Amino acid sequence: MGVTLAVDCMGGDHGPVVTVPAVLGFLRSNPDVSAILVGLSEVLEPLLKSCRGEFGEARLRVLHAGEVVTMDESPSAALRSKKDSSMRVAINLVKSGEAEAAVSAGNTGALMAISRFVLKTLPGIDRPAIASVLPTLNGETYVLDLGANVDCSPEHLLQFGIMGSTLVSVMEHKERPSVGLLNIGEEDIKGNEVVKQAAGLLRGSGLNFYGNVEGNDIFKGTTDVVVCDGFVGNVALKATEGLAQMLASFLRQEFKRNLFTRLGALMALPVLNAFKKRTDHRRYNGASLLGLRGVVVKSHGSADSFAFERALKRAATAAREHLVERVGAHMAERLAAAGVAAAGGKVVEGVAA
Amino acid sequence: MGVTLAVDCMGGDHGPVVTVPAVLGFLRSNPDVSAILVGLSEVLEPLLKSCRGEFGEARLRVLHAGEVVTMDESPSAALRSKKDSSMRVAINLVKSGEAEAAVSAGNTGALMAISRFVLKTLPGIDRPAIASVLPTLNGETYVLDLGANVDCSPEHLLQFGIMGSTLVSVMEHKERPSVGLLNIGEEDIKGNEVVKQAAGLLRGSGLNFYGNVEGNDIFKGTTDVVVCDGFVGNVALKATEGLAQMLASFLRQEFKRNLFTRLGALMALPVLNAFKKRTDHRRYNGASLLGLRGVVVKSHGSADSFAFERALKRAATAAREHLVERVGAHMAERLAAAGVAAAGGKVVEGVAA
Repeated sequence: MGVTLAVDCMGGDHGPVVTVPAVLGFLRSNPDVSAILVGLSEVLEPLLKSCRGEFGEARLRVLHAGEVVTMDESPSAALRSKKDSSMRVAINLVKSGEAEAAVSAGNTGALMAISRFVLKTLPGIDRPAIASVLPTLNGETYVLDLGANVDCSPEHLLQFGIMGSTLVSVMEHKERPSVGLLNIGEEDIKGNEVVKQAAGLLRGSGLNFYGNVEGNDIFKGTTDVVVCDGFVGNVALKATEGLAQMLASFLRQEFKRNLFTRLGALMALPVLNAFKKRTDHRRYNGASLLGLRGVVVKSHGSADSFAFERALKRAATAAREHLVERVGAHMAERLAAAGVAAAGGKVVEGVAA
Repeated sequence: MGVTLAVDCMGGDHGPVVTVPAVLGFLRSNPDVSAILVGLSEVLEPLLKSCRGEFGEARLRVLHAGEVVTMDESPSAALRSKKDSSMRVAINLVKSGEAEAAVSAGNTGALMAISRFVLKTLPGIDRPAIASVLPTLNGETYVLDLGANVDCSPEHLLQFGIMGSTLVSVMEHKERPSVGLLNIGEEDIKGNEVVKQAAGLLRGSGLNFYGNVEGNDIFKGTTDVVVCDGFVGNVALKATEGLAQMLASFLRQEFKRNLFTRLGALMALPVLNAFKKRTDHRRYNGASLLGLRGVVVKSHGSADSFAFERALKRAATAAREHLVERVGAHMAERLAAAGVAAAGGKVVEGVAA
């Protein structure tokens, strides 16, 4: 059974130069996948000329969309005034069932707002969340939310735990992924009121709840899933990005100091390359927008073709493995176990449209 | 004019084995400093035997304290039941004026609770904060709060900004340090309500307010001070510690892979050592407990003598430069500018004793 991806080819810092080659590469290695390239057809068609023989219309076609959401556009403006944007049209394809998943490297806020408006959320989910995978000492950890929700209730954190757990089951084929709650200490008495109450809900949910974890547990790989509100998750993720960039810059400076250190770099090159490959953030590209009635994957805006192809891969896996249906089923089951009404959960003020 | 440090010699993972040599080393290179070593005299005295001729009683003496706060003890238990702990006795010395600053590698929560109870806060400060310095691409950045306050009001964040700005003036001799507010985007509309209101207060305070900064700006060194609530600050700091440990571990593994990579490591050794030295977290040891009527510096629990000596240095500098008086004066001035009553500020529920 094949999977069709709707690809917003105009989004991101580089647009079609990156997205189109990534799609072509991905189609080559995944014969069960078809793609609909969404964007300005006058830009996209010429890029496909050379491979028209390779892929028939059934596996690769262009759908024209006349507008592009820019990277600094406000989500509400993008939602209201750009009904023919490549991002919107790609998501419409998921809504109509013509595609099983949408992928975009565009503006995160706009992608979330449009996805939410067009696709709607699953029953029991107040707010969709953004989940990403990070490397750890012993594998990988999925962290959510990474910025979609700046003020969360305990019920939201419970929902993130359920969605994150399902995501790991789907992507990593783990039976009962362990779930940690991000806090500032392991003891139950630590943290603010929201986190303390969330711990109680998670403990009663039937999830494989580990308890509180701290910031360093993310990269230790203490749990398969780390749950936090979007403000904390976003700051933590960006702080670690900043540290990684600083360390890389320092290492480069030290190796370039003089002829002798440059020679050292040359001798250490195979090791440095292996290290670079192992910690290559491009391998972890592709954040899942969870809780929607459709698969949407967000690529980093600065992604190159290699990184964008990883995002396509995550989208295809999520579609093949029926992520949306499984999140919906798991949510109903777990919320019932936790004693929270599935239809709507607790109504919380300030939920953006 | 000399400075006297009260040193809790029993705190931390290693206790006197680390703290005593650090004090001796620091006294050797700082002839204006005296030290009172607080702890079990039967443990401390033998360690000083060999240097009794070097330092007279005026520069180095032991004050017996019969109890020790353990690393996992609850702050309230330590506060209530251990009145003769080395930590408490050291802080008492600051209160009585016998010492200008206290340094401890012990339990952070207990140190904050005892400091707050014994020393009290300065006028205009609702809650003390923990500030630490981190390396950046172009120098250093001070971040606060790092875990003392899990729920902050906009007024608290303003107070942190004022205290952090004064700390940088004192420690780095900068005239008007730039202050950034940690958020999930640079635009004013980003973030939760607390952060949005805090931005308004900071903008009106007369501080050199830069505006919002993101997690990666910490290590870019975008501003001299980064202000955040203690939950976010603690998670971000620990997440970056976790990442650094993971990267170091990966690099070691890659260099140890085989004979050839080990040879590469040998050739690159001078560079790797320079890199290690440059990013050595021990150099940044010594967090300031700000907002109290006395100088208190918290060393990392796992500090070795080199790291602990850095904490002593920060304490001595803060005392020499009259950090407490300057925080008090700056607070009164800036709160008046921001239109917040200095005497007590806004009363907030949930302030722990």
